[in-house]
Amino acid sequence: MSVLTTAAPLDVLADFPAIPAGWAYLDTAATSQKPRPVLEAIARGYGETYATVHRGVYQRSADMTLAFEAARARVARFIGGKPEEVVFVRGATEGLNLVAQCYAATQLQAGDRILLSALEHHSNIVPWQMAAEKIGAQIDVVPLTADQRIDLDAMAAMLTDRHKLVALAHVSNVLGSVLDVKRATELAHGVGAKILIDGCQAVARLPVNVAELGCDFYVFSGHKLYGPTGIGVLWGRYELLDAMPPYQGGGSMIDRVTFAKTTYAPPPGRFEAGTPHIVGVVGLHAAIDYVDSIGLDRIHAHETALVTETRAALAGINSVRLYGPADSAGIVSFAVEGVHPHDVATILDEGNVAIRAGHHCAQPLMELLEVPATARASFGVYNGPADVAALVRGIERVTRIFG
Amino acid sequence: MSVLTTAAPLDVLADFPAIPAGWAYLDTAATSQKPRPVLEAIARGYGETYATVHRGVYQRSADMTLAFEAARARVARFIGGKPEEVVFVRGATEGLNLVAQCYAATQLQAGDRILLSALEHHSNIVPWQMAAEKIGAQIDVVPLTADQRIDLDAMAAMLTDRHKLVALAHVSNVLGSVLDVKRATELAHGVGAKILIDGCQAVARLPVNVAELGCDFYVFSGHKLYGPTGIGVLWGRYELLDAMPPYQGGGSMIDRVTFAKTTYAPPPGRFEAGTPHIVGVVGLHAAIDYVDSIGLDRIHAHETALVTETRAALAGINSVRLYGPADSAGIVSFAVEGVHPHDVATILDEGNVAIRAGHHCAQPLMELLEVPATARASFGVYNGPADVAALVRGIERVTRIFG
Repeated sequence: MSVLTTAAPLDVLADFPAIPAGWAYLDTAATSQKPRPVLEAIARGYGETYATVHRGVYQRSADMTLAFEAARARVARFIGGKPEEVVFVRGATEGLNLVAQCYAATQLQAGDRILLSALEHHSNIVPWQMAAEKIGAQIDVVPLTADQRIDLDAMAAMLTDRHKLVALAHVSNVLGSVLDVKRATELAHGVGAKILIDGCQAVARLPVNVAELGCDFYVFSGHKLYGPTGIGVLWGRYELLDAMPPYQGGGSMIDRVTFAKTTYAPPPGRFEAGTPHIVGVVGLHAAIDYVDSIGLDRIHAHETALVTETRAALAGINSVRLYGPADSAGIVSFAVEGVHPHDVATILDEGNVAIRAGHHCAQPLMELLEVPATARASFGVYNGPADVAALVRGIERVTRIFG
Repeated sequence: MSVLTTAAPLDVLADFPAIPAGWAYLDTAATSQKPRPVLEAIARGYGETYATVHRGVYQRSADMTLAFEAARARVARFIGGKPEEVVFVRGATEGLNLVAQCYAATQLQAGDRILLSALEHHSNIVPWQMAAEKIGAQIDVVPLTADQRIDLDAMAAMLTDRHKLVALAHVSNVLGSVLDVKRATELAHGVGAKILIDGCQAVARLPVNVAELGCDFYVFSGHKLYGPTGIGVLWGRYELLDAMPPYQGGGSMIDRVTFAKTTYAPPPGRFEAGTPHIVGVVGLHAAIDYVDSIGLDRIHAHETALVTETRAALAGINSVRLYGPADSAGIVSFAVEGVHPHDVATILDEGNVAIRAGHHCAQPLMELLEVPATARASFGVYNGPADVAALVRGIERVTRIFG
């Protein structure tokens, strides 16, 4: 195959010690590898500056509290929100469940409707099902266009004033399809619905600004943004957060506790019960600094080029079927005719190429595509032409073995 | 003051790089410092072996999944349970909320009663209040004995067959009082109630075996056990977990998702929605290995000796009032007459002694003690006679300044 000519290489592979020479790590949509500045922030957080936050009177704890709140301000700046609108959660999944239980299950009524799309991750389906069942709400599903994007024309036709909440992925974790969030938001707001955007696959791949997008809630995970595991962000408009009851009870989220009556702190504290993932927050700060030091415009251009090259090369192999739109953001799902995706992934692994095969926590989408699973290659800042070449060589080997 | 003669020094301070020479860190009940093996496990987890778990077909991910499940088995062995009974949560607070929402709020009915004690942490109060309010259950509060333990005789007199759940701290985070869990369990089971034990302060201070204790649920946090932040454990009897609905919806916790109907995985997966705190789990494994390498019997003897010495020394200062029983497990709460606890802590900090001052997330206990706050010194494996001496010198300085 031709060498990659369209991508502007970012040349940051050396920042990632967990990627050995010759390993094509193409599973960044599942979780990203961590750059040295993140490793160092975590090591310092546990090994030099460690203390609890928000409670200690002594200097070390006061310093850690400053670092913790500085990370909150950094997250706010990263996505264009305000610090008091940033809730630290365990991951996007918890953020979605929090909004489902504390917003949907308390603000919606029987007969109200929630709008999702056919390409959503289970994390953006099951929490709404659980909330809807509780209150007697109904869920509607926006179909996809022929090129496998969320069909916003169909959405416009489906929306009614019974729809109180719309929840959509900014970037599909299977197909890489990028949502026009501004238009989706205008459509939702047009019928008076609130809109939540699942930004898990977006924040590491595209510049995101919630003020410009106009959405009401935005969630993402740290571990997909080159940051630590166990930490994520729920951003919500302050007035919405302020009207919501607490999610979990415990330390830090209270104003005053008595056995007779307990009153709660304002957001974001109200939603952060218990000792937080202190070093996770500190590591997330470093991850955001790292991503911004490269620049999301450059990252997006780089990954788009890798996707274009990959799709072009795979399209040249007869037995390969490609899913998703041509301008997918960093993610390529595909099938090799007559070969189960797990076998594809296993053979690729023998050639030192790591991709994912499975339903990608999107079984309804698999049903729509009429497959049990797909093979998926997903890119990150550390990938380059050599990874695309290794992937294509691997697929060619698959076709020889099964050919 | 006399040097400490009763404690068998553990001599492990050198394992803790975040404790500089001359710093008396006496806030381990808030969070513990981390030993090198934990720091190294975290560094390896992010910097050498990192991958997602449960999903990847490639070798790196399969290896990480083995490490993740090995940690679950290690936790089970540490507390005497079975691996499939170990649910990884964000921390004890989430474990308590999970049981409150998925057990109490679904199994209890209006008119049922939940029994807590007067010394509980907010995390073991507020979740039950939230669940009780939802279902119309009532909360009763076991008083304390004269020496500030949970009064099990009073509990025996209070329990009725309307009590379906008892939730008590194994070790008080304010007073260090150790609960006779076996007797509490027998009392609870005697009226057919289930019993949950909040083991946050216990697992790092005492040998714990849930099979011997006989309890039904046990929760603790990793960060108080010399492990990472953002990770904790809920242990529950399998048949109880198996009868509970899921807590959060998302990836990994499902059996099959369709828009029409979603079915859920068996425990523990049912309760672990989303990508877990992978490296937190790996770090917790290392923390448990570290604690066991010293031995909880030795740790308990060491901390008990430090408490005895501290109480003896402070009792010799006229203006100091001590709280809690003489055999407190590693925790000493006290007041200096006429001086606000925050001022005590601030002056101690100037002398390089870190203690906590506040309500310790136990406002109902503060009300019972008729104080707004206490000063609290709490010990860990790294503390020794020098820390006690520094604390006592600091308190003597406080009495001179305010004397």
